[in-house]
Amino acid sequence: MPPVNLKRLAQELNLSIASVSRALQDSHEVSSQTKERVRALATALNYQPHAYASSLRRNLSKTIGVVIPKVANHFFALAINGIEEVARQSGFQVLISLTHDDYAREVSIIQHMKGGRVDGLLMSVASGTEDFAHIKSLRESNIPIVFFDRVCAEVSTAKVTTNDYESAFQATEHLIQAGCRRIAHLLISNNLSIGQFRQQGYRDALLAHGCDVDPTLILHGVMDNEQNVALIRDLLLRRPDIDGVFASVERLAISTYRVCKELGRTIPDDIKVIGFSNLEAASMLDPPLSTVTQPAYDIGREAAKILLRALEKKKAILPSQSQVLKSELFQRQSTAAAPAR
Amino acid sequence: MPPVNLKRLAQELNLSIASVSRALQDSHEVSSQTKERVRALATALNYQPHAYASSLRRNLSKTIGVVIPKVANHFFALAINGIEEVARQSGFQVLISLTHDDYAREVSIIQHMKGGRVDGLLMSVASGTEDFAHIKSLRESNIPIVFFDRVCAEVSTAKVTTNDYESAFQATEHLIQAGCRRIAHLLISNNLSIGQFRQQGYRDALLAHGCDVDPTLILHGVMDNEQNVALIRDLLLRRPDIDGVFASVERLAISTYRVCKELGRTIPDDIKVIGFSNLEAASMLDPPLSTVTQPAYDIGREAAKILLRALEKKKAILPSQSQVLKSELFQRQSTAAAPAR
Repeated sequence: MPPVNLKRLAQELNLSIASVSRALQDSHEVSSQTKERVRALATALNYQPHAYASSLRRNLSKTIGVVIPKVANHFFALAINGIEEVARQSGFQVLISLTHDDYAREVSIIQHMKGGRVDGLLMSVASGTEDFAHIKSLRESNIPIVFFDRVCAEVSTAKVTTNDYESAFQATEHLIQAGCRRIAHLLISNNLSIGQFRQQGYRDALLAHGCDVDPTLILHGVMDNEQNVALIRDLLLRRPDIDGVFASVERLAISTYRVCKELGRTIPDDIKVIGFSNLEAASMLDPPLSTVTQPAYDIGREAAKILLRALEKKKAILPSQSQVLKSELFQRQSTAAAPAR
Repeated sequence: MPPVNLKRLAQELNLSIASVSRALQDSHEVSSQTKERVRALATALNYQPHAYASSLRRNLSKTIGVVIPKVANHFFALAINGIEEVARQSGFQVLISLTHDDYAREVSIIQHMKGGRVDGLLMSVASGTEDFAHIKSLRESNIPIVFFDRVCAEVSTAKVTTNDYESAFQATEHLIQAGCRRIAHLLISNNLSIGQFRQQGYRDALLAHGCDVDPTLILHGVMDNEQNVALIRDLLLRRPDIDGVFASVERLAISTYRVCKELGRTIPDDIKVIGFSNLEAASMLDPPLSTVTQPAYDIGREAAKILLRALEKKKAILPSQSQVLKSELFQRQSTAAAPAR
């Protein structure tokens, strides 16, 4: 077999050496169809240009993958918009894959993404994920990754998050200042650092204000919303002294609204509710929902910027490029204090 | 150049002919790395097996693409869940790409998807799309497509839609029966058949009940929600006689709520509102929003079933496999008739 060089690629494809070279450099002078043929053959024959083997390989697809739990959540919908804005400016395509918060699906998606479909990944980890070997394996495949929101602490790369501990502390403090004494905390996952930070903020705010931390007031939600409604109903019936609810995810706040309506518990008079949420309609709910709102668009944008800079400059991503953005607390009627008597 | 056959592929790749053959048949006896090299070379050299060229090519990636306008819309979030349920059962991966209702982005995504990334496509057309050559070009690439919700009338394939004309007729009739006489219709796109069907249903319901069709009451929304709020504000200020709003998409109904709140117009006393929506929180809005709710999950599931059946049986998709599912009208307080005096 002759050696695999530009000349051989050109012969096999019946193209000029110059065209093959231009195609491999992604020149606009070459049709995308020709580029595809050249790249495919280069991959198939394991063509290695002198120094830039891995970086060229990286630049083959001009595609980034986004692996997230779900899209029926305004946080992720907005984060995707931020990601796509940055990707579009750099001429990158975005392919989105959903884990549905399921570990097995996440593993399968990562395997699939490794198959040369993407140059790099932006990822928010599934709440069901407890083992991170599949994510670590990306390094061997030379696929850089930036985490956003739900990060994997064990993988050394850049992470774009929000100040979850402080936000949860503030939300809980806000309920206490509005007069709540028995505050339930609803969360989804305990595995990820994000859930731990939020729960710790809740606990510390209670302690800072001289309230006990009662573990029976901490409810672990599940994937299915109907089941969550049943769990919250049980909690509120078993503990009629609950006068505040801090939901760590949007859909648990909405489920709490459903249960309160069903049980005839008035928000905010009987129970005050605050939740992490990017729901555009939060201010139009009955009553308007107080929220901790993450800068979702900016999170997506910053994460994409870090990844694309690394891909374009062929440089490694450093943990020191991590960013922590600030969430904002919006006080609305769902946490209004009773008027002074 | 020797002919491109199994033997030549085997020689070039330094593999046995049997391994190449197994790799092309996606056998589990061959490593995924080897499969990729074989497939890439087969593509690069335009290798054509005897009879099954296109169907074999189709079965290479076990991936379907979903091309939709956006995810910040509960209809699409639910439809994706239906699609993924079916895909998972068949062992297919799902890659999602968003057009943001932009024609140029849609063209670029289709080009990208044609590059061997997917075996077939499920698609809901961007509202900005007026030319369909990019979609028609999928046929030449042997990538089958099934449309759902927003279909392209000019492309002959299966389509899964809902009874948009009847639903729009019913929604408008519902407003008339609740006492409305000046009903505005808010829509996004005029290009797609879905928008035309809904507008026709609105017009015909007005005529059937002896009301005039006033074109100045038909508002064409845009992509940006803030701009839509301004447009709706202008409309309601210019036409204080408007007593009903029929929004053909969810976000225009939400924008109408915002404007009514801002202008101090009470829903349903001053203006009644109904909209197409899959918003889970519709019943928790202030007031609860009457909706036309599409069976989004089922739409996604049925569209995916048609596509996967075609891929697995290597058969063409026929327009006769199209399905029309029924939407449901939920009457809530936003369209409540004034109590009889």
